[in-house]
Amino acid sequence: MSITPNVLATRYATAEMVEIFDPINKIIAERKFWITILKLQKKAGLPITDADISAYEKVIDKVDLASIEKREKVSRHDVKARIEEFNSLAGAEKIHIGLTSRDLTENIELIQIRDGLNLIRKRSLETLFLLEKNISKYEKTYMVGRSHNVAAQVTTLGKKFATCGEELLYSLTSLNELINRLPLRGLKGPVGTGQDGISSLGSVKDLTKMEEAIASEFGFENTLTSVGQIYPRSIDFEVVSKLLQIASAPSSFATSIRLMAGAGLVSEGFKQGQVGSSAMPHKMNSRSSERINGMIVLLRGYTTMAADLAGDQWNEGDVSCSVVRRVVIPDAFYVADGLLHTFMTILTEFGIFEENINKELSEQLPFLATTQILMACVKAGMGREVAHEMIKKYATTNTASNFFTALTSEIDFPLSLAELNDLIKNPADFVGSAIEQSQKVGESIKKVTKGEVSKVDLKPLI
Amino acid sequence: MSITPNVLATRYATAEMVEIFDPINKIIAERKFWITILKLQKKAGLPITDADISAYEKVIDKVDLASIEKREKVSRHDVKARIEEFNSLAGAEKIHIGLTSRDLTENIELIQIRDGLNLIRKRSLETLFLLEKNISKYEKTYMVGRSHNVAAQVTTLGKKFATCGEELLYSLTSLNELINRLPLRGLKGPVGTGQDGISSLGSVKDLTKMEEAIASEFGFENTLTSVGQIYPRSIDFEVVSKLLQIASAPSSFATSIRLMAGAGLVSEGFKQGQVGSSAMPHKMNSRSSERINGMIVLLRGYTTMAADLAGDQWNEGDVSCSVVRRVVIPDAFYVADGLLHTFMTILTEFGIFEENINKELSEQLPFLATTQILMACVKAGMGREVAHEMIKKYATTNTASNFFTALTSEIDFPLSLAELNDLIKNPADFVGSAIEQSQKVGESIKKVTKGEVSKVDLKPLI
Amino acid sequence: MSITPNVLATRYATAEMVEIFDPINKIIAERKFWITILKLQKKAGLPITDADISAYEKVIDKVDLASIEKREKVSRHDVKARIEEFNSLAGAEKIHIGLTSRDLTENIELIQIRDGLNLIRKRSLETLFLLEKNISKYEKTYMVGRSHNVAAQVTTLGKKFATCGEELLYSLTSLNELINRLPLRGLKGPVGTGQDGISSLGSVKDLTKMEEAIASEFGFENTLTSVGQIYPRSIDFEVVSKLLQIASAPSSFATSIRLMAGAGLVSEGFKQGQVGSSAMPHKMNSRSSERINGMIVLLRGYTTMAADLAGDQWNEGDVSCSVVRRVVIPDAFYVADGLLHTFMTILTEFGIFEENINKELSEQLPFLATTQILMACVKAGMGREVAHEMIKKYATTNTASNFFTALTSEIDFPLSLAELNDLIKNPADFVGSAIEQSQKVGESIKKVTKGEVSKVDLKPLI
Amino acid sequence: MSITPNVLATRYATAEMVEIFDPINKIIAERKFWITILKLQKKAGLPITDADISAYEKVIDKVDLASIEKREKVSRHDVKARIEEFNSLAGAEKIHIGLTSRDLTENIELIQIRDGLNLIRKRSLETLFLLEKNISKYEKTYMVGRSHNVAAQVTTLGKKFATCGEELLYSLTSLNELINRLPLRGLKGPVGTGQDGISSLGSVKDLTKMEEAIASEFGFENTLTSVGQIYPRSIDFEVVSKLLQIASAPSSFATSIRLMAGAGLVSEGFKQGQVGSSAMPHKMNSRSSERINGMIVLLRGYTTMAADLAGDQWNEGDVSCSVVRRVVIPDAFYVADGLLHTFMTILTEFGIFEENINKELSEQLPFLATTQILMACVKAGMGREVAHEMIKKYATTNTASNFFTALTSEIDFPLSLAELNDLIKNPADFVGSAIEQSQKVGESIKKVTKGEVSKVDLKPLI
Repeated sequence: MSITPNVLATRYATAEMVEIFDPINKIIAERKFWITILKLQKKAGLPITDADISAYEKVIDKVDLASIEKREKVSRHDVKARIEEFNSLAGAEKIHIGLTSRDLTENIELIQIRDGLNLIRKRSLETLFLLEKNISKYEKTYMVGRSHNVAAQVTTLGKKFATCGEELLYSLTSLNELINRLPLRGLKGPVGTGQDGISSLGSVKDLTKMEEAIASEFGFENTLTSVGQIYPRSIDFEVVSKLLQIASAPSSFATSIRLMAGAGLVSEGFKQGQVGSSAMPHKMNSRSSERINGMIVLLRGYTTMAADLAGDQWNEGDVSCSVVRRVVIPDAFYVADGLLHTFMTILTEFGIFEENINKELSEQLPFLATTQILMACVKAGMGREVAHEMIKKYATTNTASNFFTALTSEIDFPLSLAELNDLIKNPADFVGSAIEQSQKVGESIKKVTKGEVSKVDLKPLI
Repeated sequence: MSITPNVLATRYATAEMVEIFDPINKIIAERKFWITILKLQKKAGLPITDADISAYEKVIDKVDLASIEKREKVSRHDVKARIEEFNSLAGAEKIHIGLTSRDLTENIELIQIRDGLNLIRKRSLETLFLLEKNISKYEKTYMVGRSHNVAAQVTTLGKKFATCGEELLYSLTSLNELINRLPLRGLKGPVGTGQDGISSLGSVKDLTKMEEAIASEFGFENTLTSVGQIYPRSIDFEVVSKLLQIASAPSSFATSIRLMAGAGLVSEGFKQGQVGSSAMPHKMNSRSSERINGMIVLLRGYTTMAADLAGDQWNEGDVSCSVVRRVVIPDAFYVADGLLHTFMTILTEFGIFEENINKELSEQLPFLATTQILMACVKAGMGREVAHEMIKKYATTNTASNFFTALTSEIDFPLSLAELNDLIKNPADFVGSAIEQSQKVGESIKKVTKGEVSKVDLKPLI
Repeated sequence: MSITPNVLATRYATAEMVEIFDPINKIIAERKFWITILKLQKKAGLPITDADISAYEKVIDKVDLASIEKREKVSRHDVKARIEEFNSLAGAEKIHIGLTSRDLTENIELIQIRDGLNLIRKRSLETLFLLEKNISKYEKTYMVGRSHNVAAQVTTLGKKFATCGEELLYSLTSLNELINRLPLRGLKGPVGTGQDGISSLGSVKDLTKMEEAIASEFGFENTLTSVGQIYPRSIDFEVVSKLLQIASAPSSFATSIRLMAGAGLVSEGFKQGQVGSSAMPHKMNSRSSERINGMIVLLRGYTTMAADLAGDQWNEGDVSCSVVRRVVIPDAFYVADGLLHTFMTILTEFGIFEENINKELSEQLPFLATTQILMACVKAGMGREVAHEMIKKYATTNTASNFFTALTSEIDFPLSLAELNDLIKNPADFVGSAIEQSQKVGESIKKVTKGEVSKVDLKPLI
Repeated sequence: MSITPNVLATRYATAEMVEIFDPINKIIAERKFWITILKLQKKAGLPITDADISAYEKVIDKVDLASIEKREKVSRHDVKARIEEFNSLAGAEKIHIGLTSRDLTENIELIQIRDGLNLIRKRSLETLFLLEKNISKYEKTYMVGRSHNVAAQVTTLGKKFATCGEELLYSLTSLNELINRLPLRGLKGPVGTGQDGISSLGSVKDLTKMEEAIASEFGFENTLTSVGQIYPRSIDFEVVSKLLQIASAPSSFATSIRLMAGAGLVSEGFKQGQVGSSAMPHKMNSRSSERINGMIVLLRGYTTMAADLAGDQWNEGDVSCSVVRRVVIPDAFYVADGLLHTFMTILTEFGIFEENINKELSEQLPFLATTQILMACVKAGMGREVAHEMIKKYATTNTASNFFTALTSEIDFPLSLAELNDLIKNPADFVGSAIEQSQKVGESIKKVTKGEVSKVDLKPLI
């Protein structure tokens, strides 16, 4: 029997994200945290020597998971097991003075979360960068726009990318707000009063000073004031739900790709050697888009889990959230990262079947122009609802190709067949402000990505 | 058979919230929207007269739900049914020119959502205002702090309120950010290109001008640029998940009240005539706290629903979300509003059994001082882990009352029984920065509520 | 401001379902339950007279919701308020002896749930009945089958209905199992020991006898033995999740209708006077199918809520579930009922555009035959993977129309163009056991619906 | 950077469950499936030799994950990659004839699920076995029963275990029903028509025969008739929701343990060397019970994910579910298994603080007897509601210790102080049928576990 791997980390997430939540890296991060504390405690006058600090520093990278697991089986306490291991390696017993486990883990986890959010921010910017390329590229690719999955009016492919882009920009604004205010939990002890830290350092002021030094060391502007053993789990919920919010624009676009690919209009990309289906050699499946639609399902489930912790704390804290957070926090970040990475691969490999797009458009145009015709009727003096009724009658009983002939057979209809045909001769006439909108969104994207992204390197998908 | 009422609106939400989502009010709001458009269209030169406008204005309040329902049964289109009704009442056919149903509903719903969020913001401020009263009132009420539901260290009741207050303050910051950027969807037509509006008005610029006028009329700073038929449902998801985030602090506190009440320490309040349990006359149940814990469960379910719509749009839009949003949006707001209202009632009626609080504290104090003792041992030169092991040994095999005697029987133990008893003589010595933290949170609350809340009126709970 | 109606009950559910959960009917059901108990208590020798019973019986239908609500505002206890009202109307004070509120409500709710499940069972059978009609009707309607939304192989429309039918049959089996074992909670008192009932009646045996009489009176075969104040909420969870399971087959089929309608192949039905879109008169939207896909989203949210109660009981019971169950139980039944009703309307009004179906099929046939060609190559001695590679090469670089020509240009390819064209001349050759499968599912449906459904009456959709 | 492990498989699940979903075991299972097919195909006359079969059999255990991953990076198709690897190892190309990937994976996964369900069934029986021991052991341990977390009436600790036992028995019945009808998907090809299998074998009948042989080989009684590429995902949903249903009884009991432990009444067990809290040496946390309450949160999230797939299939199938099922199915089984294993550890190590239980009971007894007193008043001729009001008045304004004195000071009160004290002298008088109920549940458990479990071996918890 092999070690069961985390399928999200090993199949989908990028190396950068995996590194943030890597179990060994986390232990090293914890040890750095301890050493930072030791140095500050020494400065504050606690009986800690340079030799002590150096003893810990020397063994910081010696991580032996099996040994730690063995300790945990005795103590049934994971943090304690890691402390014992670190002490044993260093041959000292100086860390953990005036602190409780949560003083370590709650802060370390917020640091991981902050790093994860920053990476998602970077991925979002990269995604926007690639979206903008497609907005420009397909600015004048006129096509059938659909509502209720039925041909409705003319739009452009560029605008479809722009709509995705604007939704993602909006989510990114919200993500930035969260990153800017994410706090550290601070050194608050087992019920949040900071009692042990104050005892060991001397005063409330000394503890506050140490908290400030740590926040500064780890790059945080805010530290919470009054917590229990743990920081509020509504913060975790906001984090996980933010990942889902970020994923929404790519996921809706992936759905549309699946629909367009099914109609033979576009392809999400087809690499040399790729197998569409093992049994159906001709097929070019929207495999990556489907994957994105699956990944957001995972994020919805992780949101359910995080939501279940929010508002469910007992007194100053419990560990019923522990097993949940062990799963939800890394896994939600792996998925969100993998989803954006998959989407960027699509944005890079995306292609269109222009002939099919044009064929569909010209076939549907008589129908797509019905609102134009309606407007023309109203301008010609007909009541809006009467005109609507008459157009509907012929549109729902005729195919696109004989719709105009049928409509103009109606005596009261105010336009001639020639007028109708003239009305639809140029698809660009029916596209409203699609192009202006796309350009405006493109500009906004350029503004936020400028200086942040200049090119995007993608690892190959599996 | 009676009309089945919405149980959330009729039992729990406040009148102000019910008004925002009231079905008749919504129809009136739609009519106001139409009239605003008519006026702007007239100004833009469309064939609309003052008499037309006046005809609509006269019937704005004549809402006959049965008549509208009858129309909908024929057309199977709810917005269309309401338009026909309004036209029929006004004896005109001028609304809806150059617009599609969603140009109405998507904007009206964002207006309702914005109003709902503002009311939740108001309720949050009122809640904070009442929390601050309790923070001050119980600033020096020393009590047992618990982690894992087991007595851990001394804290204050004031700090418990402060912890709730800080979590709510944090969520409120996040809510404010959302309110500040919530956009209107604008007049974009059936696939988002604005084609019909542009046709009817003349130019892209004219439509943009009209969109700006509408945004200004309804108090929005942002309008979306590129959408399909609908605005992105990730916005709805952010809204609903924000309500859950706001509810988290009250819900965790409600859980703690249930725990404290079970131990006979506090009561969430007991009104004249209230029946604790129909079969057990002596009981004083934490009925409102339990209700809050139930209400957050509802919010979790509504979050699941909203999450399911995010990232699931087909092309330029579909109505698979319609039935969902009809339920989720009002119901989530009713619950969030009812939850805050219930919590404020608790904050107003909350009381303590001081004798029991003190009794528990003095019984547990020898145990609660173990970290203090640990510190004292370290200061006296003992290794931290050795001391920890020794204290644990006696603490887990003795009751609180004979713990000190047993501990001092150990030869290597560095403190005397007298020193130990001296160590615990004053609970205030063990409370760390609980009081400073509470004051700091209290100050922050006063800062945000100043000028916003001066008193809170509550309707009676059922 | 109007009374806010429950939108699910008033817009979507059938009258039969609304009646089951009607608030007034529930009060009458409770009163019947009290009277049943009174009669049994009288028989058991308690001081209850025929005049007492008659006094209650006379007022059973006098339900004044406003008066009850007024009482509840004082007592803050809904059941107590209804008892006081009933006593006051009867001028007696004999109900509620030896019982607690939950002895009433937990049983009444299980009766409602059982009735709701039976109605869903009936609706499922009606749905199967209509599915079978369509299975037969479209037995030989050959069409493109798709996987990944891409044309894959030939299938029949009848088989699509059969696949839906078999999934629903499977879910129905599961529903039947649940209905058969759903228990009453029994008369167990406030902590489940039955203490009060035993005190009032005399012995454990007497209480058991009364419980059996009640179960028999209300048509239950099982009564729980050991509960707390409430029956296990995992039962509610099973109920709600069963509704979602039942809804799955219709919902997947609705998705396929939306896809097929988007390609112009089928229509879910178009009634005289129906408005497809208020702005686009020609449109025939899959409005009901979209609604079904929305309704299952609601069921997912209600499942989240019910899941949150399961495994979350405190000691012998709390009421944190009360507000949740008030919403979830009726609302989940309204949605499930409305979903099946909407689906049956589709099954009744469903129509096809046969020409388009045939056109798509003949266009795609060369591609759909690729597995046939692969088989033929293997039979002709070519290695499977080599053949797969060669076919894929030409299939992915050619349109359907010139695929065969291109493929036969390859020297090693073992079949001639004539052989290839011969291979695809009859779509029925490619349909595998689609027809046999459909017939087999059709037979299974007839077996379960026989004697249960002979025709289906539908109320008009709004 | 290390391989990120699946934290659920490595920390919580038992070796037996990990084995079922082990990635290498799955590949071996797939290979066995191929070989089974090969043998049946040979028997059916396909050009397959004994040497071919033997070539595959020889390499069945040679699983090189890195080599497979390399292949997948080219083909972007995981099943194809594993087929190529197996072919390459065997030096043959005979598997996969007349089959598509899903003919393999859909069946293999149902086999895994069936095995997983059977293991959960075994764990449930083991859990019941241990519950029964505790039911007997604590049959006469009288204690305070609580509703709303407030002392309500007398119960027994044995009954608490019995209530958990009956809920689990009920869920187990439901699980058994599911196991008994879980079907294989069969060999249906890419759109479910079985076209390729029929082509390769000759007739519908031949394919049916092969499906039956496979079902029999793998121990299934049912095979689905009409599916698309995949079996209905409502089956997955039923499976995952069943795991949650099974977990509910342990989770509610774990909550009660946390509550009882917080009051010093019981301990979930304390092993030699275990560290309660790293900072608070005296603490004995309900760490395992908290873990169970966290684990059910995970199951709720996996239920959300599985629910999202149910009813969301596009046409004959897509792979948007693929990434979801890769996570949900194993992870939900790991959690459910770990949860039951954790619960069994508690059931084994559970202990009580009898003195505290008795102390609480005698303190609360005057209050717990209020329903008894109420009954006595009614028997003495007082109206029920009048008596209730009077008892409530004194119960809510007095402590337990002076309640009786105060009550008997009321002139109209029909009982004397002596009568009251006599009423409460024996707690067993107040316990209703707690003991009979416990015995009855105990008997039911013995009946279902008989011949299935005789002892339970537990791995140590970490």
